[in-house]
Amino acid sequence: MSKLSTNPYKGARDFYPEDKRLQRYLFGVMRSVCERYGYEEYDAPLLEPTDLYLQKGNEEIINEQTYTFKDRGDRSVTLRTEMTPSVARMVAGKRQELGYPLRWYSIPQCWRYERMQRGRGREFYQLNVDIFGDDSIAAEHEVLLLTADLMSAYGATQDMYEIRVSSRAFLNHVLTDKLGLSPVVQKDVTSLIDKSEKMDQADFRAKLSALVKDEGGAEVLENILAATDISALPDELQDNSSLREVKELLSACQQAGLQNVRYDASITRGFDYYTDIVFEVFDTHPDNNRSMFGGGRYDNLIGEFRVEPVPTVGFGMGDLTLQNFLELHDLLPDLATETDLYVAVLGDTYKAALDIVSELRQQNLNVALDALDRKPEKAIKTAEKKGIEHVLFIGQNELDSGEFSLRNIVNGTETKGDLETISQQLLSR
Amino acid sequence: MSKLSTNPYKGARDFYPEDKRLQRYLFGVMRSVCERYGYEEYDAPLLEPTDLYLQKGNEEIINEQTYTFKDRGDRSVTLRTEMTPSVARMVAGKRQELGYPLRWYSIPQCWRYERMQRGRGREFYQLNVDIFGDDSIAAEHEVLLLTADLMSAYGATQDMYEIRVSSRAFLNHVLTDKLGLSPVVQKDVTSLIDKSEKMDQADFRAKLSALVKDEGGAEVLENILAATDISALPDELQDNSSLREVKELLSACQQAGLQNVRYDASITRGFDYYTDIVFEVFDTHPDNNRSMFGGGRYDNLIGEFRVEPVPTVGFGMGDLTLQNFLELHDLLPDLATETDLYVAVLGDTYKAALDIVSELRQQNLNVALDALDRKPEKAIKTAEKKGIEHVLFIGQNELDSGEFSLRNIVNGTETKGDLETISQQLLSR
Repeated sequence: MSKLSTNPYKGARDFYPEDKRLQRYLFGVMRSVCERYGYEEYDAPLLEPTDLYLQKGNEEIINEQTYTFKDRGDRSVTLRTEMTPSVARMVAGKRQELGYPLRWYSIPQCWRYERMQRGRGREFYQLNVDIFGDDSIAAEHEVLLLTADLMSAYGATQDMYEIRVSSRAFLNHVLTDKLGLSPVVQKDVTSLIDKSEKMDQADFRAKLSALVKDEGGAEVLENILAATDISALPDELQDNSSLREVKELLSACQQAGLQNVRYDASITRGFDYYTDIVFEVFDTHPDNNRSMFGGGRYDNLIGEFRVEPVPTVGFGMGDLTLQNFLELHDLLPDLATETDLYVAVLGDTYKAALDIVSELRQQNLNVALDALDRKPEKAIKTAEKKGIEHVLFIGQNELDSGEFSLRNIVNGTETKGDLETISQQLLSR
Repeated sequence: MSKLSTNPYKGARDFYPEDKRLQRYLFGVMRSVCERYGYEEYDAPLLEPTDLYLQKGNEEIINEQTYTFKDRGDRSVTLRTEMTPSVARMVAGKRQELGYPLRWYSIPQCWRYERMQRGRGREFYQLNVDIFGDDSIAAEHEVLLLTADLMSAYGATQDMYEIRVSSRAFLNHVLTDKLGLSPVVQKDVTSLIDKSEKMDQADFRAKLSALVKDEGGAEVLENILAATDISALPDELQDNSSLREVKELLSACQQAGLQNVRYDASITRGFDYYTDIVFEVFDTHPDNNRSMFGGGRYDNLIGEFRVEPVPTVGFGMGDLTLQNFLELHDLLPDLATETDLYVAVLGDTYKAALDIVSELRQQNLNVALDALDRKPEKAIKTAEKKGIEHVLFIGQNELDSGEFSLRNIVNGTETKGDLETISQQLLSR
């Protein structure tokens, strides 16, 4: 027999109880903030027909970065790479029955076959928040407010991150009406802009000039992309209706107390399905000044299932980037085990100890019972390893006298008394 | 463009909010009962190296029922079919660091490629509960008590299900020492017994005779398998130490108030890794009188990773069989949406409405804001579709007067008053 590895599959994570506890905290905050805004949780299968992703034309991901294979019935299936195609499928499937505006969220596990890098794995979770059926910027506004509340619920202050907003519709207007680019070139330019953050400035300029050709045009575009404020854009663009919407959104955010939302024309988001306003959330920490997550409006995706389209605004937030952000800003909380008490038997007292433990459990205390009858130090060592604060030994002496001693193994204190006293002490924490 | 299907992949489930709500209820009960017993949640990747499953020698499942494929690095990977191999891997990986007895649970998603049948899907979740490092029957006893508490937490009474207990070690003793079967034949007989519940009696007898050959032996075995009580077993077996352990366990369960635990020698569990006591939980409903889930002791699995073995007792409970059981016994609860209030704007009141909604949210109320400014009936219809009980309209009249009307659209009542009155009414539910 060959030696079996105890490592998880490369790029995927084992969640030991301390890791799972952190995940439960992260997901718990997501759930609570989303539900505060009236969003309902949904889920979809991790395996989807490959066709679902092919339709989106996001070729790089599909051809190089997915787990795609044939099932035993010769159907091509893909491990979910993101939730948006699935949620569009689900909304389209019950297009008439659902009530709009529809607010849905999910925290799906996703898989991408990609090179390992910081804040990325092949397996990750991604909070997805979407509002369907509201074509006004109230939808974008809500999603940004929710994002800010989410960050705040993790303890982040507004100086720790920045929300940068842009408009694909406005960019398309510039590329089409101002620069006269064909749809194909326009798509390439958008994709180039999306990657510009990670590119060398000269390299970007060279590639842009090759695509735009008209030298004046490339310069116009570069100036627009460099604008960090709408007022810095050329006068003749100020009246564009898409740009006006961005202005309105920024002003609404400002009024609602969000001081860290600003315009950035270079934000485009990679996916082709975005149609209008898009945004990205950047970490402002000097060691991690990069985009963490984002979203935007995609009004045409549901229509691809041949039902009436539904205007949609949504975003996705990966668990690994979030965790990385919280670590950097020292925002990860100390999380205690759910177990309130570790009870260890001393001698032949298992049955009596079990009765006592059952009673404590009926008082909603979480109690682990150690029936191994070992030396007290060993039981204490075990409780320590599990991070359990309180230990109670049950031997014949305790049973005869009805007097017990509850040890707090963290601070070394003891509480002596009958079982009522012990349970009150535990419940009062 | 071909028409994209809105159906999920065959055998897998979409979870619309009402489905997800049920899942959250089912999983929430699991979590709460497991944690009451001091179990901690863990998780492992859905993709595992195929080797992990091959080692177990459970050929039928691996060759015919798994999703197995090569990743882009030419490594053979398998979508998790069950959690036990993964948890054994994780415990082995930190063998020295963990504190025993170790109590772990998980609710993993699993995938099996199998024919559709009631209570089964290709995708399912399975609660896994395991206690590591206790070789006494206190471990089995705890797991059965936990099982009973779990069933009770779902509202099941003891007459609705039955726990049948047996011992693989005892069966092996009969097959080896009494019948003189070789290890290979012994394995085949065990596997045949495991399938006997679904087989025709004559068919079973024929196959058994073919394996055991010695006619007297087959009869001895059939009599043992037919025993529904240990006292019905032959006298010369009564002193067997494995059987004595089963007796002790049954008596401990009886003392703890479990009246629905009994001996059944025909319980073997399919998996090869079980070494000693095994059990299965049967639905007693006449329409579904079958095994729902089960578990037992497997003391050698962790040792396969070339670390010191850890005695383990555990069980797995599938979500689909559980749901089927709860439906049949009419135990599925009515689950309300998490959203407390549906607020709809009337006219140009979005900004003021948002301020009010923000205030309500700060009081921990979950509030959805409908900014569409539609006819009131339409907003009410939407709230109804979402199952939200309370609706509040915010128009200029309400803003001017400071008087609001909270409508309960389920019972038709109205609460009138200022915002304080409205929020108190909602919070007092």
